[in-house]
Amino acid sequence: MENLYEKTLSKEQIYSGKIIDLYIEEVELPNKKKGKREIVKHPGAVAVLAVTDEGKMLMVEQFRKPLEKTIIEIPAGKLEKGEDPLLCAKRELLEETGFSCEAMESIGSFYTSPGFADELIHLYFTDSLVKEGEQMTDEDEFLNVLEVSVDEAKEMMSTQKIHDAKTAYSVMYMELARALKK
Amino acid sequence: MENLYEKTLSKEQIYSGKIIDLYIEEVELPNKKKGKREIVKHPGAVAVLAVTDEGKMLMVEQFRKPLEKTIIEIPAGKLEKGEDPLLCAKRELLEETGFSCEAMESIGSFYTSPGFADELIHLYFTDSLVKEGEQMTDEDEFLNVLEVSVDEAKEMMSTQKIHDAKTAYSVMYMELARALKK
Repeated sequence: MENLYEKTLSKEQIYSGKIIDLYIEEVELPNKKKGKREIVKHPGAVAVLAVTDEGKMLMVEQFRKPLEKTIIEIPAGKLEKGEDPLLCAKRELLEETGFSCEAMESIGSFYTSPGFADELIHLYFTDSLVKEGEQMTDEDEFLNVLEVSVDEAKEMMSTQKIHDAKTAYSVMYMELARALKK
Repeated sequence: MENLYEKTLSKEQIYSGKIIDLYIEEVELPNKKKGKREIVKHPGAVAVLAVTDEGKMLMVEQFRKPLEKTIIEIPAGKLEKGEDPLLCAKRELLEETGFSCEAMESIGSFYTSPGFADELIHLYFTDSLVKEGEQMTDEDEFLNVLEVSVDEAKEMMSTQKIHDAKTAYSVMYMELARALKK
């Protein structure tokens, strides 16, 4: 098997921000030639597939500035420095929807864009929701909470109201669970 | 329903690169306060779930500099300026694996990281592969081609050799197809 490693020859920080940092690295490619890599550093994120007693998925409608539009996603947020992903998932669920839960389990962690970013998203599942109160979002965060059935979610995917990878994965997770139960 | 729109007040380009650009936008939040958004602009990408006559998924093993490790993914690549996603998917499949195909269909398009990036990945499916020859990768691209069964892919997910969203989605797509057939 070919050695695929790329050694860093030099590294320049272009930007250090509130959420992301940007670096340019000059690398030695496997054929010993030089290449350039543009790399976004991200603290990582969590997302929660939260299912109500009626079998509906909790979702949030949010304006996403990079897309210049509103889309519907499962509750999610970025990790604070050093924060445990499970605790972060419970915090984000409570802040964005007003629900806590009795139990929450990991259903996988995925790099979202390994070509240019190190963002790792930790995905959790819960179906033991407890309504605590209203949403308590960050001061720069505005969203509407929805309860969506699997079939409604599939319809929203076809009209691109649901249009992001973590939510599409979660909808398919629910479909697979339903198919395996039959 | 609350109005969630964020109006751009000012926009500064921080970086213009080979693959990504970085902008900082000052926005007016729905409560009329000001906020800051860090936005990565990306040309978009394609990925191909390509299934052999033996029911195995074509995958590529590649060193991903942002992760500082080698992972296994379905064939993928970024769109050239103005390129049709379907043609791009066929080109990337041929370049990375040496396979063309008789037919290829869309199975969805997803934003990978809507919180900070506009990357949209177009996912395609084919099971009519034709071996054309060897891989013909870009000059800064090095990878090994693998053929992986669904059960092997699930094992690779548990050991994090498969660790990215588009590939995890594709493995679940195959699982769902198998579950619905039974």
